[in-house]
Amino acid sequence: MTTIGFIGGTGEEGMGLAYRFAKAGHACVIGSRSIEKAQGAVAELREKDAALDITAATNADAAAAGEIVVVTTPYAAQEDTLPPLAAAVAGKTVVSTVVPMSFEGGRASLLSVPEGSAAQQEQALLPGATVVAAFQNLSAKKLLKGGPLEADVVVCADDAEAKKRIMTLAAGIEGVRGVDGGALANAQMVEGITVLLVSINRNYKTQAGIRIAGIA
Amino acid sequence: MTTIGFIGGTGEEGMGLAYRFAKAGHACVIGSRSIEKAQGAVAELREKDAALDITAATNADAAAAGEIVVVTTPYAAQEDTLPPLAAAVAGKTVVSTVVPMSFEGGRASLLSVPEGSAAQQEQALLPGATVVAAFQNLSAKKLLKGGPLEADVVVCADDAEAKKRIMTLAAGIEGVRGVDGGALANAQMVEGITVLLVSINRNYKTQAGIRIAGIA
Repeated sequence: MTTIGFIGGTGEEGMGLAYRFAKAGHACVIGSRSIEKAQGAVAELREKDAALDITAATNADAAAAGEIVVVTTPYAAQEDTLPPLAAAVAGKTVVSTVVPMSFEGGRASLLSVPEGSAAQQEQALLPGATVVAAFQNLSAKKLLKGGPLEADVVVCADDAEAKKRIMTLAAGIEGVRGVDGGALANAQMVEGITVLLVSINRNYKTQAGIRIAGIA
Repeated sequence: MTTIGFIGGTGEEGMGLAYRFAKAGHACVIGSRSIEKAQGAVAELREKDAALDITAATNADAAAAGEIVVVTTPYAAQEDTLPPLAAAVAGKTVVSTVVPMSFEGGRASLLSVPEGSAAQQEQALLPGATVVAAFQNLSAKKLLKGGPLEADVVVCADDAEAKKRIMTLAAGIEGVRGVDGGALANAQMVEGITVLLVSINRNYKTQAGIRIAGIA
């Protein structure tokens, strides 16, 4: 059992991951700028399952409480949200689920990030943490709905031990396999896959995921 | 039966696709700057199966002969190779398999392309053609080896009919499914997947492919 803090955890992605991690036996702390908003998200998840260990907090308290800290803010928010949390997450594994995506004329496109990827930007904003990129390609709707997902989570990091830890965390979600995606810089390509899936979801009216075929 | 011309078809990717398309009953014309090199590639493929309809040509003749023209040059070569072929491919469907990738210190990384992707650059270089991006994620080694692949081919194009045609062509490769990847601009993300697969291949000592899970 690990305590997992969520930064900006009141959106679908944060709530969906907290739901699944809590179901797998972890303690989840949903952080938000607004404690009321965090409490609302927790109340919603408790309606699904009152036994889940999910609590509400400010982002600062979620960052302090988490042994692992998961960033589920929108891309546009992380430059403001993360720097004040740098001290609280120093020495910890921080998970970037963020996708730098914009919607224009109904089309999703990948934003160019000066650091290469949202995950690398996160690492630059939180220099004392060990950033691991993961979970970007999971459908938030499917996470929240419950039931097995049919998807791989490609995990990218420069620290082998932190990467392994998050691959194991991913594999705790029913139907999910953690795949070693190499260095943190590879997060750029994994973030891009989400943009592609958004387009595929629209064409096929589904919530698609990816599988890496041909690995044991 | 369609005649398929290959531009820069003597590398593993071109040879592998020509082998599979010829096995599916199409006539393939392998183009190269050097006709001798093209003849060498054809001889190699005929050793696998003497009945295959594969012939050698210059790039210009392959571009002229193909009803569909497949570009399998390295990314760095397409800016020089393609403009002289623009008239020959005008009005035709041109398939971009190209990935803008560099290797530094043993690590693959995605190059930034001014047009957004190698496929969009190809469209800019061949303004009279209809460019469709596909096949970037297939293992050339597995294509050449024979046997069923375990992979989806994500097909991106702005022209719905040309996209459909290439999705059907892809599905003619044993084990492969064509997936509608949306607009040509989405090729950027599909090209990136190849870079990710290169890293995964190295970690897992395999030739991986991708599957889109959750679509019918």
